[in-house]
Amino acid sequence: LKITCNRLALHQAVQTVQKAVSAKAQLSVLSGIYLAAADGQLELQATDYELGISCKIAADIQLPGKVVIAARYFQELVRKLSGETIQIELSTAERSVQITSGSSTFNLLCMPVEEFPVLKPLINDQPIRLQTTILRELIQKTIFACSNDESRPIFTGALLLIEEGTITMVATNTHRMAYKKDTAASEHPLKMIIPAKMLSELGRIMPAGDENVTIYNLKNQVAFVFDNVYFLSRIIEGQFPDFNRVIPTQFNTTVQLKTDDFLAAVERVSLLSSSGDYNVVRVEVTADSLLVRSNNPDVGKAVEQVAATVDGQQFEIAFNARYVTDILKHLDDPECIFQLIAPLSPASIKPLTDADYVYIITPVRTA
Amino acid sequence: LKITCNRLALHQAVQTVQKAVSAKAQLSVLSGIYLAAADGQLELQATDYELGISCKIAADIQLPGKVVIAARYFQELVRKLSGETIQIELSTAERSVQITSGSSTFNLLCMPVEEFPVLKPLINDQPIRLQTTILRELIQKTIFACSNDESRPIFTGALLLIEEGTITMVATNTHRMAYKKDTAASEHPLKMIIPAKMLSELGRIMPAGDENVTIYNLKNQVAFVFDNVYFLSRIIEGQFPDFNRVIPTQFNTTVQLKTDDFLAAVERVSLLSSSGDYNVVRVEVTADSLLVRSNNPDVGKAVEQVAATVDGQQFEIAFNARYVTDILKHLDDPECIFQLIAPLSPASIKPLTDADYVYIITPVRTA
Repeated sequence: LKITCNRLALHQAVQTVQKAVSAKAQLSVLSGIYLAAADGQLELQATDYELGISCKIAADIQLPGKVVIAARYFQELVRKLSGETIQIELSTAERSVQITSGSSTFNLLCMPVEEFPVLKPLINDQPIRLQTTILRELIQKTIFACSNDESRPIFTGALLLIEEGTITMVATNTHRMAYKKDTAASEHPLKMIIPAKMLSELGRIMPAGDENVTIYNLKNQVAFVFDNVYFLSRIIEGQFPDFNRVIPTQFNTTVQLKTDDFLAAVERVSLLSSSGDYNVVRVEVTADSLLVRSNNPDVGKAVEQVAATVDGQQFEIAFNARYVTDILKHLDDPECIFQLIAPLSPASIKPLTDADYVYIITPVRTA
Repeated sequence: LKITCNRLALHQAVQTVQKAVSAKAQLSVLSGIYLAAADGQLELQATDYELGISCKIAADIQLPGKVVIAARYFQELVRKLSGETIQIELSTAERSVQITSGSSTFNLLCMPVEEFPVLKPLINDQPIRLQTTILRELIQKTIFACSNDESRPIFTGALLLIEEGTITMVATNTHRMAYKKDTAASEHPLKMIIPAKMLSELGRIMPAGDENVTIYNLKNQVAFVFDNVYFLSRIIEGQFPDFNRVIPTQFNTTVQLKTDDFLAAVERVSLLSSSGDYNVVRVEVTADSLLVRSNNPDVGKAVEQVAATVDGQQFEIAFNARYVTDILKHLDDPECIFQLIAPLSPASIKPLTDADYVYIITPVRTA
């Protein structure tokens, strides 16, 4: 292997595949980045078996070949080198690659390339074509609602559902649920649970702007293909809860208020409650406002008044403050709609202007 | 106590005294901020006995008084409140203060004000008057060279020396030493070792721009007075090394090179050595360059060439890479002078244009 390429392009490619490098590699070669040079392209790959990412960049290939380099050093080095271009050359005798750029010459030991589980990008005849802007929005507006508890795997992922001209993503940790729908003209239906951390990573590396992304459902795996990237994630087996049954159809109270005011009030009040186990804030619906309260016998108590337009019954209800602030931070609408049924029934928070984005939150039972 | 004041002014005052709040308070009241309202001013104080800070702001005093509030909550609250002004009122019956601002009402439990060791700002008749710009530069250019090892207290502080129209600050961990001198027209001499963490904090809270600061030497303590702030630190007892004997008077090699090129080369090369115990880089002086090298048998090896003007003997010397990068990051001169005596003798690094800033570094003995 002997190649020359643009350093910034290589840096971006390394950043793209980096998150698939195994942090605690069972197999040491998985802590490396695989480089394959052929046909005017340099392909980078990393995988931890759960997530595999391939990224290709243009390169001047003087000698085709394959090599695996420790990701930890390669990444830092490519970032810090000063040259506009970078040369990489395999020295088979020394089992090392020589990396030169500007006035720097580095020799890094290689990892055994024959041990690397090379990703063979697969596609099928049922491509689902989308725009990255839509997919990114679905991800950003839902996955924060997932659970981190690996003992219940289904809730560590988000449901991706494509059917009848719509695309929907739903995430829940059983105490709160985020639901976001958009239009999508796909001939092929899809229903799968994708790990939240893979979706988060996908959102990070998808190009900015409105690009094409193609999804392939590949037997226990899902591939996202865009630009020069092939992104392959495992999917989570199991039955996702019926989200339609979680979303109430009728409410007894509808409150309209400013998103930022509601957020600031809950954040401040929860300063006092956050040291407790459940971070509970009480919300009292009055005729023309919400009164947000907390009480911590060791610290003190707080009350905030948030002006609101209230329609329906007035009562008090208690929530985990973080479940409220999480959604308010993700609403990109200056006004929100907060709907309630009763003190012990699920409530809904959604933006004023987007009926396709809904968040359901279960109240906390307090003494 | 009943007062009204500007919220941002209070926020800044809380930030100023915050670092003197005891993190692991032996006495619980030291985790609080003391507020005293009288004569149109609100004074804030915090102390952990090693460092005490007082800060005064203008306030509308409806009822004078004193109170201690848990710093952790008070700080966050003052930061997050939304009103332009803030009202604080003591409720003696409930042993709490009511804090109101905008649409927020908080009641925080008080701490026992009679237990707080109130700082009585002292001055003496030997004031040393300086500019904050000079003091800040002395601090920034030296204290990074201090030790963190509390078992040898002298090296956790920097020497402040005022004599014969000069002010000097010196810091060392015994392996490297930073020395910076400036002019200062003071009638009173001064020689004391001040803890680096106090100097760091002082540098942070001194007002930007060229303000006056007055130093008082107060029997085991030193006070810095500026603006609305009184800053009282303990000093470190003991004999500081004779820094004049540490600075070599003659060198066998003088190298002039670009500061940023030298820094970048050492940083890159040390990528490979940083996993070892001593982070060793070798520097070879050639006729027209420095060759910076590292070698890690488990990872690989690196060499960087840095163009330089070399005068004198050519040889190789080894350093702890961090001791080299630390000083290069603090030089605000595009060119630096690197002077050597022999492979096992101290070397010097200094800016091209400031003879009053000198850094001495002891080489590492390698196999």
